[in-house]
Order: sequence, then C-alpha cells, then structure tokens
Amino acid sequence: MAYLDHAATTPMLPAALDAYVAAAREVGNPSSLHAAGRGARRLVEESRERIAAALSARPSEVIFTGGGTESDNLAVKGIFWARRAAQPARARVVASAVEHHAVLDAVDWLGRQEGAAVASLPVDGAGRVAPETLAEMIDEYRDELAVISVQWANNEVGTVQPIAELARIAAEAGVPFHTDAVQAVGQIPVDFAASGVAALTVTGHKVGGPVGVGALLLGREVPCTPLLHGGGQERDVRSGTLDTPGVVAFATAVEAAVKTREEYATRLAALRDELVERVRAAVPDAIFNGSVADRLPGNAHFSFPGCEGDALLLLLDAQGVYCSTGSACSAGVAQPSHVLLAMGADDARSRSSLRFTLGHDSTTADVDALLAALPGAVERARRAGAWKTPR
Amino acid sequence: MAYLDHAATTPMLPAALDAYVAAAREVGNPSSLHAAGRGARRLVEESRERIAAALSARPSEVIFTGGGTESDNLAVKGIFWARRAAQPARARVVASAVEHHAVLDAVDWLGRQEGAAVASLPVDGAGRVAPETLAEMIDEYRDELAVISVQWANNEVGTVQPIAELARIAAEAGVPFHTDAVQAVGQIPVDFAASGVAALTVTGHKVGGPVGVGALLLGREVPCTPLLHGGGQERDVRSGTLDTPGVVAFATAVEAAVKTREEYATRLAALRDELVERVRAAVPDAIFNGSVADRLPGNAHFSFPGCEGDALLLLLDAQGVYCSTGSACSAGVAQPSHVLLAMGADDARSRSSLRFTLGHDSTTADVDALLAALPGAVERARRAGAWKTPR
Repeated sequence: MAYLDHAATTPMLPAALDAYVAAAREVGNPSSLHAAGRGARRLVEESRERIAAALSARPSEVIFTGGGTESDNLAVKGIFWARRAAQPARARVVASAVEHHAVLDAVDWLGRQEGAAVASLPVDGAGRVAPETLAEMIDEYRDELAVISVQWANNEVGTVQPIAELARIAAEAGVPFHTDAVQAVGQIPVDFAASGVAALTVTGHKVGGPVGVGALLLGREVPCTPLLHGGGQERDVRSGTLDTPGVVAFATAVEAAVKTREEYATRLAALRDELVERVRAAVPDAIFNGSVADRLPGNAHFSFPGCEGDALLLLLDAQGVYCSTGSACSAGVAQPSHVLLAMGADDARSRSSLRFTLGHDSTTADVDALLAALPGAVERARRAGAWKTPR
Repeated sequence: MAYLDHAATTPMLPAALDAYVAAAREVGNPSSLHAAGRGARRLVEESRERIAAALSARPSEVIFTGGGTESDNLAVKGIFWARRAAQPARARVVASAVEHHAVLDAVDWLGRQEGAAVASLPVDGAGRVAPETLAEMIDEYRDELAVISVQWANNEVGTVQPIAELARIAAEAGVPFHTDAVQAVGQIPVDFAASGVAALTVTGHKVGGPVGVGALLLGREVPCTPLLHGGGQERDVRSGTLDTPGVVAFATAVEAAVKTREEYATRLAALRDELVERVRAAVPDAIFNGSVADRLPGNAHFSFPGCEGDALLLLLDAQGVYCSTGSACSAGVAQPSHVLLAMGADDARSRSSLRFTLGHDSTTADVDALLAALPGAVERARRAGAWKTPR
C-alpha cells in the first residue's frame, strides 16, 4: 500500500509507542499524593518540560488536552468567554475562512448560541491571510474583539500563514491571538515564544504520537474559561485525569519530530516536488492548489478537472493508494471544500480535488504507486463524471 | 508496595495494553474513506458494539469521549444547553450534593456563567439520595428542570444510589437523568437500558483500560449540544479524531470487567470486609463512613479521630502503603471532603478520613501491609495533631 494521507494521521513512532507501554505498566494517578501518584506526576512534568523545550514555551504554558479539536475549542470558546466576562463589549470572534472545522464550528456555535458576533478573515487565491486584511478588521472592530484565530498551516492545501506578522498586529491591538499549529509542528519551525501568539494548538497523532492527546500552549496571562470543569488539573483550565502514558508518548513524538525536522522537511519537500512534477506530467490539466513558496513540505494538492474527488479517491484506494479529498474530519460528507471555495475556486474545482500528504515513512515507492494508478483512475473518474453530467 | 487506591486509577489490564499496541501499529484515521481508514473504523465500531453489549446499550448510544470528566461535562452542559434552547423556561440543573467535581463544578459554572438556576439534592448520613427527595424537588421545580445528575456510586465513600428508582421518577416528569457510573462499572451490575437513565458516564482507567478514553452512553432521543465542535464525529455530539487504539483497549477492559464482575465483586467484598474488620480491631475508635449495604465491593472509608488525613496518608506512604484522603482529583487541595460534609460529618471528621480501595490485583498481602503500618501511623498522626492543636 501507498499511504499518502499523513495529514489525516501518521503512524505512531516506535519510540513513542514504547514510551506509552512503559508508562502504562506503572500505576498511579498524577493527582494522587502517594509515591505511585508522585511517580506518575514526575513523568507528566518531565513530558511537559520536553514539549515546552521543543516548542520554545515555558512548561507552565503547556496545558494537556485530549487533542487538537479540544485545544481549538478550548482556545476559541474559553478565551471568548473569559474576555467577554471581563469586558462585555468584547463579544466578537474572528477566524480565517480556511480554518479547520474545529475552529470554524466552535466560532459558529458561539455566534448561534452564546451571543458572539463573528467575522471571517478572507484569504487570497493561495489560501493566505494578508496581514493588511487583519489590520483592517482590527481597525473596524477594535474594542469589540475577544479573540482571533488563524491556523499556522492549512490542513488541506498546506498553505503556511504569516503567523508572526498576524500575531504582532493582534498583540498591538491587545487581542489574544490563537493559532492551530496541528499541521505545522514537525514540518516547519514553530517557536511559541518568538511567534508572539497567545495560544497554540498541537496534537499527538499528527507528529507520530498517540491519538487523543494534545496540548494548548497558553500564555500565563491569557484569560481562558475551562471547557471541562472538575478536579482542577492543568492550571484549573482543563480538568480530567492526566493521561500519563499518552502524555509521555506525546512528548517523545514532539521531541523527535522537532529534533529531526530540518532534515525531514528537506527530504519530504524533495519527494513532494517529485510527486507534483510527475502528477503534472501524467495529468497535464491537473490544477495545483495553494502556495508554492509558503507551503508545508509534505503537502501536494490538486484539482483534476472533470473528476469527482470522491470517485477518484476510491479508484486509487482500489489500487492500494490512500489519499484524501480534504480534511479527514469531514470525509464522508459530500460537500465542496470550504478551503478551496474561500480561495476562489468554483464548486466543480473544489469537488474535483485530492490531497496527497507525505510523512516519516514515505518513500519514492509511494510516489511510484500513485503514478502507476493515477492516470487510469483519472480517466475512469472522467468517464463516470461525463456519464453523470446532465445532457 | 500495597496499592489501595484503585478508585483513583487501576492498573491497565495486560489484555487491554496488548490491544492498544496492536491497534497502534496500524495506521488509519477512522474518518478517512480509504482502506486504512475503513480498517480503523471497523475497529472502532466493533469496540462500540462490545461496550454496548457489556452495558446493555445500543451501539448508537455509545459516544466516545476523552474520559469521565469530559463525559460528565458533556452530559450536564450539553443537555442543559439543548433543553434550554428548545424551552427557555427549562433552565434549572439539579445534582446531588455528593457528585464528583466534574459534575459539581460543571453545574456551578452553568449557574455562574450561563444563567442556569441550580439546586442541590441532599443526602442522608450514608451519602444516599432518597427517591422522595428527588420527587419533592421535581414537584417544586417541574417545568423549570433541564437536567438531573446523580452518580451511580460515590467515588469517596462508595455509596451506591438507587439509580433505577431515581431515573424512573425523573423519566415520569420528562426530565433527562444523567448518572456518573465511573466507579460502578465492573463493580456492580450496570444495565443502561434497564436503568432507565438518559445518559451515563463511563471511563477507561477505572476498569483496567487506558486513561483519556471514556464514553457517554446517550439515549438516541436525548438532546445534547456538543462541548467540542468540529468534524462531526460521534453523532455530531462529540468531534475529534477517534482514538482507535484507545477505544479498542477501552472496549477490551470494559468487556473483561463486566464478564468477571460477579466473581470479582465477591472476592473483593470479602477482602474489603477483612480490611474493615482488621482496621476496626487495630484502631477501635475509627469511624466507618458510608453505607454497609449499598456500597461498592472494593471501597472502605474511615475517619480516624484526632488525625489529619493528609498526615496519615503520607505516614502510610512512607511505609509503601498507598491510599487517598478522598478523590484523587482534588488531592493536594487541603479542603474537607464535600461528600462527608454533605453526609453530616463535621469538619474535623471530614479532614481525618482515608479511603482504601481495592482492585483486580489486590490480595491479602495488601491488607497485611496496611495493618502493619496503620497503628503506628495513627499514633504518630495523633501526636502531630495534638501538637498542632492550640492550647
């Protein structure tokens, strides 16, 4: 098989799985006061320090969560609630039009159910938020703003945002800025302190760690109301028994991903460029989506005119080639990608797109397998599409 | 060491850890459409069926979450939000006075921040909610009620509530009834369908499964607003990438715990009774807290007059005997137990209490170790207490 869907989830690193197993063989709740509890607590705090060091945060800024979706929801809703409680006029949430659904749907819910005002930051044809666009929006809504959320890199087309510039503009206006860096960590440099963001989402299973474990890096001074109330773990921002084995495995994966990032990214970008070139040669009218320069090294994204993305995906799947029409999280729902629509693509182009994402075990053999299957699949998908087109 | 803190967390069953590892060696996001994703989806759905069968629920009633705290927050806040949105007068939340903080603090937050009215169900001296008390409260607030939450069994003193009776009274009044069954599953019979509850919390790490995975059993017809928005997983009630290895390990543990429950409970109750008898013989003025009849088989709970529970805990810890002053989740915070206070204990008795909880690897040797250490520890704790008492 050729697994070209690393942005959906990437295999767990053997070192991370070993770390999980070793920790899971010990017993102890990190909140317990006895030696078994203190042993678990030590593992959690060491993991916190390793993640903080890898991402240039302070250990106290690492809030462990159940993953990316929870971190995004916590940042968006939590900061909104806390800011509005302190200053009722600050009831507006701003997010880019190309955010993951974990941010977009959280924002939408705040608008529908919690009385938030909402504003969407448009993107250019490559999926990029221009700093001027954010500056204009801040000018328009200055004293109404509760929180701004712009992802570090897009999960569909891999576009990397000018996060430091955006964060600086938000900071100058005194508005907490959150970024979903789920796709960025381990692919491009992510430095929490230098970026100037107030809050940053990271998750385990996109970097070779376990599913169900993530973190929100949250500045000490950033107010944030909990989503999960209870025992008061994690600075009282996120209650719930700490998952010691999961946290240790997560730290192992983040550390490994950041340590090997430069070499890994160089190798991946070269492999990705080979994939892009060969897809273009094989399907000359394929449209390459997103940015060339500001792009994750492992991401390639195309529209194949005349094809339904879902049909193409299944034809490739039948040949053992695994890819995605967009975000795995909304897979199965036959809707055109909101990311491509926001980038100005029409409905047909949005529906005809496929994402290929590489990861730590990707090789040229995966690209070979894709290219062996793709031309035939495109041809069949086009015939199916032509047959379905009303005459 | 003698680990007498299974209610805080219990060792992961080897079969559950093996199941985790086997699943973690495969790659695939259950939301992906290709074969790797479908393989993961199959594992998740099989796990859902196993958990449903073990707890007498329908598979579609199993909503996977990140654990007990999340399930409790989802039930309490989610049902409140959904019910109030449909009927604005239904803005009151009722919970027993002895709930876990994951319920109590969620209810408290709804009151402080979300405009909920709140009411607390008192308990008797054994920590039990009388059905008449609930009936009276329903009479008083009938058309205001959004959701009621009463735990199946208490995490501190092990008192088992008359859940079916309480649920019937709530159902007759048309009010969704949630129960936190985190401590009950695997210890006493838990039958979701027969109990008549609308929603039920269960978590992995209390039954020999992993931390960070749990479920909310949620009737198909019970309205519930998500806490975590995003990709729309889990009936659109709980978004976030499904943790395939965690879910498989969780199912393995729940199935094993329910299968062996009867034999296990008999063995544990006998061992617990031995522990209680020997503690009483060794420390004649120790006060046994909670119910004798309606009690979890693995739970013993005492107050040791003249001792600070924390001091006693640490003295026992120094002898390799691990127990708790109450909930691990609020350990470290020097507050008298809200559970004992609600049961009518005074501050001194609440502060002088220790919980001993047995689990699947507990033996007489653990009781021996406790009894070898306890008399000396009680004596030292009393001397320390006397020294601290103002004269």
